[in-house]
Amino acid sequence: MTRVSTDRRDVPAIHEHIDAHWPDHLDATRAFLRQPSISADGTGMAATAEMVAERMRRLGARAEVVPTGGHPVVSGALDGDGSHTLLLYGMYDVQPVAGEAWDVDPFAAELRDVAPFGPCIVARGVSNTKGPLAGTFNALESILATRGRLPISVKFLIEGEEELGSRHLPSFIEAHRYRLGADAAFFPFYRQDVTGKPIIHLGCKGVIFFELVARGGEHGGPTAGAVHGSRAVWFHNPAWDLVHALDSLVSEDQTRVLVEGFYDGAAGPTDEDEELLAALQPTFDAQAQLAEFGLRRFKYDLDGVPLLRKYLYEPTCNIDGITGGHASAGNKSMIPHAVSAKFDCRLVPGMRPDRVISSVREHLRSRGFGHLDLIVHDAYPAARTRVRAPIVQAMIETYRLFGCEPEIWPTIASSMPLYLFTEVLGLGTISGGLGHGGRAHAANEYATVEGMRMFEKSLVTLLFALGRHLSAPAGGEVRS
Amino acid sequence: MTRVSTDRRDVPAIHEHIDAHWPDHLDATRAFLRQPSISADGTGMAATAEMVAERMRRLGARAEVVPTGGHPVVSGALDGDGSHTLLLYGMYDVQPVAGEAWDVDPFAAELRDVAPFGPCIVARGVSNTKGPLAGTFNALESILATRGRLPISVKFLIEGEEELGSRHLPSFIEAHRYRLGADAAFFPFYRQDVTGKPIIHLGCKGVIFFELVARGGEHGGPTAGAVHGSRAVWFHNPAWDLVHALDSLVSEDQTRVLVEGFYDGAAGPTDEDEELLAALQPTFDAQAQLAEFGLRRFKYDLDGVPLLRKYLYEPTCNIDGITGGHASAGNKSMIPHAVSAKFDCRLVPGMRPDRVISSVREHLRSRGFGHLDLIVHDAYPAARTRVRAPIVQAMIETYRLFGCEPEIWPTIASSMPLYLFTEVLGLGTISGGLGHGGRAHAANEYATVEGMRMFEKSLVTLLFALGRHLSAPAGGEVRS
Repeated sequence: MTRVSTDRRDVPAIHEHIDAHWPDHLDATRAFLRQPSISADGTGMAATAEMVAERMRRLGARAEVVPTGGHPVVSGALDGDGSHTLLLYGMYDVQPVAGEAWDVDPFAAELRDVAPFGPCIVARGVSNTKGPLAGTFNALESILATRGRLPISVKFLIEGEEELGSRHLPSFIEAHRYRLGADAAFFPFYRQDVTGKPIIHLGCKGVIFFELVARGGEHGGPTAGAVHGSRAVWFHNPAWDLVHALDSLVSEDQTRVLVEGFYDGAAGPTDEDEELLAALQPTFDAQAQLAEFGLRRFKYDLDGVPLLRKYLYEPTCNIDGITGGHASAGNKSMIPHAVSAKFDCRLVPGMRPDRVISSVREHLRSRGFGHLDLIVHDAYPAARTRVRAPIVQAMIETYRLFGCEPEIWPTIASSMPLYLFTEVLGLGTISGGLGHGGRAHAANEYATVEGMRMFEKSLVTLLFALGRHLSAPAGGEVRS
Repeated sequence: MTRVSTDRRDVPAIHEHIDAHWPDHLDATRAFLRQPSISADGTGMAATAEMVAERMRRLGARAEVVPTGGHPVVSGALDGDGSHTLLLYGMYDVQPVAGEAWDVDPFAAELRDVAPFGPCIVARGVSNTKGPLAGTFNALESILATRGRLPISVKFLIEGEEELGSRHLPSFIEAHRYRLGADAAFFPFYRQDVTGKPIIHLGCKGVIFFELVARGGEHGGPTAGAVHGSRAVWFHNPAWDLVHALDSLVSEDQTRVLVEGFYDGAAGPTDEDEELLAALQPTFDAQAQLAEFGLRRFKYDLDGVPLLRKYLYEPTCNIDGITGGHASAGNKSMIPHAVSAKFDCRLVPGMRPDRVISSVREHLRSRGFGHLDLIVHDAYPAARTRVRAPIVQAMIETYRLFGCEPEIWPTIASSMPLYLFTEVLGLGTISGGLGHGGRAHAANEYATVEGMRMFEKSLVTLLFALGRHLSAPAGGEVRS
């Protein structure tokens, strides 16, 4: 048997190595940020994938740029001490910058003061998430430089389509699942909020992206193009079909989805979740939520835990947009031949996307809207990792070792295909790391330089802590 | 008293004058068509207005280019025999040509064969309606050249905003109504269909152009910009408000407007209308209507007079278009901060636009949608002229003198602000003339050259016939 490293005595030396080599580490991260990698239009994607693979190889890892139907996945593996493995998920693509008002070149990775944080790198992707990815490689280099081997094995799964909705990640994971065996999955990210408090999210909602299209056809309405509105007295208008169909989906007060079977299997909070919600209550400020998003009121006359419970455990159906016919300036009377809406449903644990899709189809059919075209653009279930998972316990321990008490959310209201890790691969999965960044998907995206350094140190601490937690006997205490 | 001309012996000589000078007349019309006059972007509008005034002055008319808030109205008057006056309404603006696939320069007024009609002028506005306007001036010139005076006086009201919805015509007519006194109003137009049958429409529906805008505000929902769709569990979505509000307006089968008071005062067909409908039945082909517009079925399982009755006497509420949020390619979850729809209501005689607007407002308010913004872009009532009106009788007589039996529709389902003539000025009003054109508002708009010549002759005959009909004792027979 190989030696299982539970030895934290190596960690201070590795942290010192990071401090001693910080100018080089920061330079390496900035060099990576200067390489554009815009998945939306393909800018720099192939070169960036190669750069990621090269950084893996410099660590001594086996690395491969694996083609997909879109941008490639960079896959790699590096053996460490013991028999446990961490799957490091990451992304090398970034959002486009076109149309954004940057104060600096978004691909110059300039050092700027950002109030009130002080020195920052301002660049596209510095926070979301090429900064953390580069920092991860830096941290692993310091571990190897200091002690020769990682405390646990790691596998890398770095995709180039996160900003496109991880289009080919499901098929990649399906195709390679028997080589992605691991004990936990981790997405490196600067997870401290503006106050310095680290946040842990244990899961996320699932989502279904629907498009509903009403067109003329056998049931009536124009089939080839718009018809003059004076004919509306004779001819069906697909826009009314769309409006009536959408109307039937959600109650007028917008608090209830009216599709039979929609809520089937939806699980409310567990006892563990209720404990976590109670712990969130003291710092949860509902009015600040309204102010942040420029709203005057919630749907519900609730506050505190009941409001949080709605947020995290209530499935939703939301119209993202609607379009068709003449809606610009001027009067133009017409019966449009096609009108469509996009809407998304957020799913909580226990809801199966295929069953929800069937329920919506059956609802439309039984209500007389079966002639509308319901398209599913994407669908995946919720994901959830339990607090007791070693990756969660190791992350909590790491934050505490750095003097930070993390805030733990049982789940979040937004959606990512985390189920690929939690359900398909069956791994405890979180994202984490010290550090603070902001303005993701917007101009002047930033991350603090000091946070970037602390991120690297926290990642080192995490790997050692995870090694110890994974080696602890089931149900046993971890000696720290 | 001036001599009232009832003398039809002049007409053959005038017709001969048109034939003898036809190359000059056609050249004059083509020259007018070569002057672009696109009201949407203002191209050539001032020059065209001046050209129209100049043609009036060449007739010896008083003519004036009258400024409005938009493009000017060209107003004029020319005394004729007797004490009766015809108000000639016309338009000198045309639709834009951008984005249309023309086979010829739309402003070259080229002579082309158009199957199955033979020689045509192909040009923007040749049919709708600079061709008929130029032909009217040509016909009046031939009358004056032949007998020195018109058989009745005419006033001209030629607007430059018909294609913009006659924006400033109501205020123009309100301001000048006491100088627009006349006995009838007439809109020169090529009125023969593809079979050569002339059509007379005795009226049109009224219309209200509405816009309904849902925004975030005190009632909930985002106020400044879109909010991420994951927050939809907490926050109201204006798109649902819009959908629910629209849904409440019209029944699911689209045959009934659900607004209380909407149908108040709506008049069905009169005995005269029923006679006209019965006369239309033999040539009305419902299946051809479906085929023409590419539809498979009507809203109603009706045919013949019952289907025509729906078409002409049923008020409607029709969605023209709807827009807001993310509805283009890709998935983007959001709560839009503003979503809007445009819809129009078609009104039959007896319905007052102000009352319909109040009913819709009250409906929205009482159903809990009072926080949506209901904008009225345009509103006017239906218009109707009776068969016994001298302008109608003179038009029927004219068509018959040319060997054509006109088809008389009591009204049409589309809308124009004809009420300005029929209600505000109190005049019997129709549009008419021999001639055939097509493809209005589309590429390769055309009119047949032979029809353009017959149009001029029919206008001459009409003016003499109208003089006689106006001079007949009330209720008396007109000797022809």
